[in-house]
Amino acid sequence: MNTFGRNIRLTTFGESHGPAMGGILDGMPSLVKIDFAMFKDDLARRAPGRQAFTSPRKEPDEVEFLSGFNSEGITLGTPIGFIVRNRDQRSGDYAGYQGRFRPNHADYTYYKKYGINEFAGGGRASARETVSWVVGGALCRQWLATKGIEVSARFVETNSVAQAASDGDSTGGIVEGVIQGLPVGVGEPVFGKLHSRLAAAMMGINAAKAFEYGDGISAASSLGSETGDMMVPIEGRPGEYTFATNHSGGIQGGISNGMPVNFKVYFKPTPTLMRELHSYDTEGNAIVIPPKGRHDPCVAVRGVAVVEAMALLTVADMIRYL
Amino acid sequence: MNTFGRNIRLTTFGESHGPAMGGILDGMPSLVKIDFAMFKDDLARRAPGRQAFTSPRKEPDEVEFLSGFNSEGITLGTPIGFIVRNRDQRSGDYAGYQGRFRPNHADYTYYKKYGINEFAGGGRASARETVSWVVGGALCRQWLATKGIEVSARFVETNSVAQAASDGDSTGGIVEGVIQGLPVGVGEPVFGKLHSRLAAAMMGINAAKAFEYGDGISAASSLGSETGDMMVPIEGRPGEYTFATNHSGGIQGGISNGMPVNFKVYFKPTPTLMRELHSYDTEGNAIVIPPKGRHDPCVAVRGVAVVEAMALLTVADMIRYL
Amino acid sequence: MNTFGRNIRLTTFGESHGPAMGGILDGMPSLVKIDFAMFKDDLARRAPGRQAFTSPRKEPDEVEFLSGFNSEGITLGTPIGFIVRNRDQRSGDYAGYQGRFRPNHADYTYYKKYGINEFAGGGRASARETVSWVVGGALCRQWLATKGIEVSARFVETNSVAQAASDGDSTGGIVEGVIQGLPVGVGEPVFGKLHSRLAAAMMGINAAKAFEYGDGISAASSLGSETGDMMVPIEGRPGEYTFATNHSGGIQGGISNGMPVNFKVYFKPTPTLMRELHSYDTEGNAIVIPPKGRHDPCVAVRGVAVVEAMALLTVADMIRYL
Amino acid sequence: MNTFGRNIRLTTFGESHGPAMGGILDGMPSLVKIDFAMFKDDLARRAPGRQAFTSPRKEPDEVEFLSGFNSEGITLGTPIGFIVRNRDQRSGDYAGYQGRFRPNHADYTYYKKYGINEFAGGGRASARETVSWVVGGALCRQWLATKGIEVSARFVETNSVAQAASDGDSTGGIVEGVIQGLPVGVGEPVFGKLHSRLAAAMMGINAAKAFEYGDGISAASSLGSETGDMMVPIEGRPGEYTFATNHSGGIQGGISNGMPVNFKVYFKPTPTLMRELHSYDTEGNAIVIPPKGRHDPCVAVRGVAVVEAMALLTVADMIRYL
Repeated sequence: MNTFGRNIRLTTFGESHGPAMGGILDGMPSLVKIDFAMFKDDLARRAPGRQAFTSPRKEPDEVEFLSGFNSEGITLGTPIGFIVRNRDQRSGDYAGYQGRFRPNHADYTYYKKYGINEFAGGGRASARETVSWVVGGALCRQWLATKGIEVSARFVETNSVAQAASDGDSTGGIVEGVIQGLPVGVGEPVFGKLHSRLAAAMMGINAAKAFEYGDGISAASSLGSETGDMMVPIEGRPGEYTFATNHSGGIQGGISNGMPVNFKVYFKPTPTLMRELHSYDTEGNAIVIPPKGRHDPCVAVRGVAVVEAMALLTVADMIRYL
Repeated sequence: MNTFGRNIRLTTFGESHGPAMGGILDGMPSLVKIDFAMFKDDLARRAPGRQAFTSPRKEPDEVEFLSGFNSEGITLGTPIGFIVRNRDQRSGDYAGYQGRFRPNHADYTYYKKYGINEFAGGGRASARETVSWVVGGALCRQWLATKGIEVSARFVETNSVAQAASDGDSTGGIVEGVIQGLPVGVGEPVFGKLHSRLAAAMMGINAAKAFEYGDGISAASSLGSETGDMMVPIEGRPGEYTFATNHSGGIQGGISNGMPVNFKVYFKPTPTLMRELHSYDTEGNAIVIPPKGRHDPCVAVRGVAVVEAMALLTVADMIRYL
Repeated sequence: MNTFGRNIRLTTFGESHGPAMGGILDGMPSLVKIDFAMFKDDLARRAPGRQAFTSPRKEPDEVEFLSGFNSEGITLGTPIGFIVRNRDQRSGDYAGYQGRFRPNHADYTYYKKYGINEFAGGGRASARETVSWVVGGALCRQWLATKGIEVSARFVETNSVAQAASDGDSTGGIVEGVIQGLPVGVGEPVFGKLHSRLAAAMMGINAAKAFEYGDGISAASSLGSETGDMMVPIEGRPGEYTFATNHSGGIQGGISNGMPVNFKVYFKPTPTLMRELHSYDTEGNAIVIPPKGRHDPCVAVRGVAVVEAMALLTVADMIRYL
Repeated sequence: MNTFGRNIRLTTFGESHGPAMGGILDGMPSLVKIDFAMFKDDLARRAPGRQAFTSPRKEPDEVEFLSGFNSEGITLGTPIGFIVRNRDQRSGDYAGYQGRFRPNHADYTYYKKYGINEFAGGGRASARETVSWVVGGALCRQWLATKGIEVSARFVETNSVAQAASDGDSTGGIVEGVIQGLPVGVGEPVFGKLHSRLAAAMMGINAAKAFEYGDGISAASSLGSETGDMMVPIEGRPGEYTFATNHSGGIQGGISNGMPVNFKVYFKPTPTLMRELHSYDTEGNAIVIPPKGRHDPCVAVRGVAVVEAMALLTVADMIRYL
């Protein structure tokens, strides 16, 4: 379904080629003052066409809030409804895709699942959908800031993005995230472990292929004697501890231990190449798809804002009633 | 909370040092014939003390089913309640841990979260909990088999487990899983992507530190031109396709495409070493924990059965109303 | 929270004095053709100012759909986002209420719950909210019609509405609903009984004070020997039955038995009278509220459309994966 | 499904003719001291054979707790697993029912829903199921008591129960419930209104046919000018109010206002009469069911304990994270 979260819930709608994207953020506490200038900065970081090496599709991404605030921008505790118009719908760009499966897209799986082939341009599978996630995340960021919790992420280059762009190719990449200021005790011990919730959130981002936290992959080839995090008493607070190292990535038994929570998300290259592609249509005919449409040479670049948004939504949801 | 799944839901209870573990599997269809001999095989694979290099704690793991079947072992469509007695409770082993935080365990985070220090032996954080997951998974396996869906996993050694065991040390490891026979169309396109659900399930297993599917981590350093999966028409079924390669790991846009779904889970070494350990107690005093208790030199070995169980529960849940 | 349903889920937002109401209907199957002319008829029945004896607030209630359909009005299986602008916001009407508790409204309980007094005009407690329910219900109606399931309701007068209107008073009333064409087997046997779900839906309507189904209240003073429904074999379908009477209201053990499901909802009079009212403010001062604002002399009149909408949403949700 | 609640969740299992009933109460806070003597009193009130005019089936109803407490009966914050053995299974009593539909029972609807006829004795539809609800409710009662919240209910006779019993007949009845000590602010304003949640809980009880709260049914024939609850300032607490009357039943806009929450549940007579009954079987043959089995001449008598349990579970769930 199209809802993320349990206590603070983001429900989204919108096809990339339709009139608007949007969503409802439900469960935000009342009396949170939103700084809309800061909010816009958050949103701008996701927008394509604003950064080197992202899709040239330009979208001002004007968010229209329809509920949830009083006239001073203070939350009422009611659901926050918002829409973002798709101003740059140039659906003509996608006209040629009708009935044809773009290779390595979700076109075929959507068609088989829903029995309808109306997803040219990506429909719900488009990265356009993430605009609503970033709106939700940006609102959560401001509430979390009042509690001293901060989320940030950064792009780690693996191949030369400029080279891929000039080759009409695309490349994968990595995004590293860190959650700072989490109190001890966030996370459920069995099925709602903090890192389990984070993994689900991150793997829900388009093109994400792997998730790790703390020592991550390298832990699998480590020895127990090498990877312990020694407790260090916090001065003046008997019975409270910090840790000398952070192999555990800030999480023990699924529950935050007060250290920074750090994780990585591995993104594959986007499948839309600026090259002629061979594929098939709904009838079984071989087709050639010419190199039109828009694409990101490295989706991980824009993924930074989305990784932050999903981490913000996850954390906000998990501390809402702590 | 202690519930996994939405349509087929496993809810579990039990502390490793208490009288019993158990759970309720709710949502299983009626009219599924359960083969209890096959069921026992599944359970035996998880049990410690049955394999080389696992904890010597021996548990016959007799499952008592309390509801959900008729006298011929056919499901009624009602919730399946079951308990597994903790016959080998030797809580004396853990007596020394009361009020003391074992290093690199969840003792400290549990204590801070619940305000009570009664989790010696692991409580809910113990690998003992996974017996209920394996019960649930084994039931799902038999239902899925009727639909031609199979789940299997295998252990991949990274360090020498025998060496770690003889050193009183522990080592991490990798478990590879594969889901075969899934029809096209399993998975939700936005927040309930098949791999997102799998990631959450796998990262909920104790000691799991990373998850990848398909090309996984290596996708992040790949080019788009190298990683495409070409569609191949299925003879005699016009408009239906399989794929020449499986970079995508059987999932496109979050939805299964008919190819095998393959994934890896990276496990860290267990923190319980057969060595003296330095730590602290609830009062802030430095303590030394002597090398008693039991431990697994490589938790990933037993993780194989648990990875299968969680994949089975995930898939069963997702195809229940497909 | 602001979500109704589990399989077909309506999530709503909007304050009556804000820019728009709206919602997201998630889970509707793909390939349902929506007749928008019929849809408008459904919506018109809820609108105030269109019927004798309802609030004179006139709202064209133009629904703008933002997603979920293709250009021919066929559902895609994606979430249906929609908004309804509040064109007639005359918030000046409510200016006098700021900081003052209208008697017998939710002003005081909202204020204590959310710590903010911005709910003049009703906020989320306004009957205006039900426009989104009616949108959701009207969409469900068309899907249910394809399965032969119909929902209808009618108003039963208890006091003279015209008399109450001319006295500046208000009166309660009853709405009778019936669900026809339900197959046998809808409803969960324990906590999700069909009538339990209906009761929750109906009691969620503003001003609803009681719910009954089948023999209802009168069953409490009946004898078992008087209230049985004899089975009647359906000719030509051995092993299938209908019933000679319908004391049970079409539900046995929480599950539909193929007979019409009939129920009643009892509405209290609206608290907004066209008279001077004595009350208090947030500071503890006694105040007098003059007779302005708008009101319904009998909210049950408009309740007919809302009862239908909630029954449609409930039934659609419950048969979605049957 | 078989789960009740969202924050404090009771999941149950068990067929009345199977080895045991039981459940898991998940979400109870840690550090609640349970008085097991008081707990047994609660349970005894539900048990049949303990009161005049209830089914002669005698069950000691020994609850075995399997998790969730430390050795002093203090909750750990972990799920509480429990089982209640069905010691008095006399399934022979029901042998004659195999393949035959008892009139006015759920036998036919279950059969059509699950495709299996194994529900002689009631299966999940039996009043036996409520033993698990009462266990859950009794645990919640003790937690709620620490917050000054109390729930009580009483039976209101409509026909002479003794007369019905001696006639081999059964009669309906009414149970009145009241929740005292609720703080202002419990309940969600739109779809999770306090009375909506209560209605769902009460209508989920076997044989419940109607629910009302506050003025209830009579409100439908009242005038607005007659039914207002005047606010009364609470001395010494400026801005806080109580109410001079309680037409609203302690709830305004779906949210508790600090007054007692009172409600009524109307129960129909049980269908099991001590008389010969005419019905049909799965093949379509007319049958006669002789007067054996056990029955309650008035199920509402035992309903008192069940009404309390469901109100306790509802309230506990709703204030868990308030």
